Amino acid sequence: MRKSRDTFSSIVLLSGGLDSATLLYYVRRKFPEPLAMVFLYGQRHRRELDSALAVARKAGVKVKKVKVPFPEVGSALLQPELKLPSRLTNKIPITYVPARNIVFLSLALAYAEAYGIDKVFIGVNAIDYSGYPDCRPEFIRAFNRMIRVGTKAGVEGHPIKVIAPFVTLTKAEIIKIGTSLGVPYELTWSCYAGGERPCGRCDSCRLRAKGFREAGIDDPLLSSARRSV
Amino acid sequence: MRKSRDTFSSIVLLSGGLDSATLLYYVRRKFPEPLAMVFLYGQRHRRELDSALAVARKAGVKVKKVKVPFPEVGSALLQPELKLPSRLTNKIPITYVPARNIVFLSLALAYAEAYGIDKVFIGVNAIDYSGYPDCRPEFIRAFNRMIRVGTKAGVEGHPIKVIAPFVTLTKAEIIKIGTSLGVPYELTWSCYAGGERPCGRCDSCRLRAKGFREAGIDDPLLSSARRSV
Repeated sequence: MRKSRDTFSSIVLLSGGLDSATLLYYVRRKFPEPLAMVFLYGQRHRRELDSALAVARKAGVKVKKVKVPFPEVGSALLQPELKLPSRLTNKIPITYVPARNIVFLSLALAYAEAYGIDKVFIGVNAIDYSGYPDCRPEFIRAFNRMIRVGTKAGVEGHPIKVIAPFVTLTKAEIIKIGTSLGVPYELTWSCYAGGERPCGRCDSCRLRAKGFREAGIDDPLLSSARRSV
Repeated sequence: MRKSRDTFSSIVLLSGGLDSATLLYYVRRKFPEPLAMVFLYGQRHRRELDSALAVARKAGVKVKKVKVPFPEVGSALLQPELKLPSRLTNKIPITYVPARNIVFLSLALAYAEAYGIDKVFIGVNAIDYSGYPDCRPEFIRAFNRMIRVGTKAGVEGHPIKVIAPFVTLTKAEIIKIGTSLGVPYELTWSCYAGGERPCGRCDSCRLRAKGFREAGIDDPLLSSARRSV
């Protein structure tokens, strides 16, 4: 990435899932020309990554792919030999990836500070979610406090801000916002398992289905899957 | 790295400089079998990296090399075309690397949590230093607070701790500790410029020289360089 400073309005973390796709469209309307940052971190399947790239292409947003040297253990999302859980409990599930959002935000922060970008957007949500600690408002607040004391921009009084606009919305509310913005949900991918069609059983499939149901909207990913049968 | 959980006592961030070499010996005495983590992040020269590997080998400590996808701009340490500053001022110098310690600690944290390690050591120092914000005690405190709310280990009540034992010591004090522990300072490298011998003019050379002078100890790196003339 050799583009000069101040060219991008912001950085948007893009995963290929529903929340971050909505976020990209939401941010793009308010702050034209965001940079979408997509992380390759040893995911079980490429489907999520392909979805992220397809969404960015559709949105006309430039992508920075970042390869992250994550450990190969510690999560069912990194270890294909571990079984994915099929129901939500009140415990943090084994799909939790150690320090994932901390690492992603740190790298986005490094790029933001190096390129003079002052906003980093992340699509985390702490309402209809799997209980990951790094998706909660208290985490975002603590990360921002750390930026203020730990970066040059921070101590000079113009800290980069991590912004999580959807953190206290329901999945249905996010889907309604996205639908009004024309987010191509048929290109997104939420299922932990990869494959041709969503498994319908993992945490992530269940939360997505609940969101569309509560929003009273058909999930275009399922309609297109049905059409292709 | 396929070693099983709980095998390493701790992670020590190792740069090849004087402080982290001392730290490695200091930690190893208290907590046998640390894992040294060495980051490849686009440094101007390989000398620092070679020093880190030589120190770890001498200490008999296993190394995990981690390649970090840093931006290519934003610091004189990443851009060889930028001139290195030759004197300390009260401003943060252009050798500051955006979010460097934040990224390093985040990755170390990911490994620590994945492998069940509960301590991450970093050799930062806020007394005889270049004014980098991510070397100060308030940064370490804020990072630890962020870990407590942002990781599974943290919310479950056994957070990984980032520990910076030298943060309020003078360089001379660090050198005295290291000398008593037998740290091979002739293998370390502090100069920002690389090359055969330290430049003697950059911030880092000046801080090192001041440390040895105040400790009343000869810098074995300079003696060995003199011997090799």
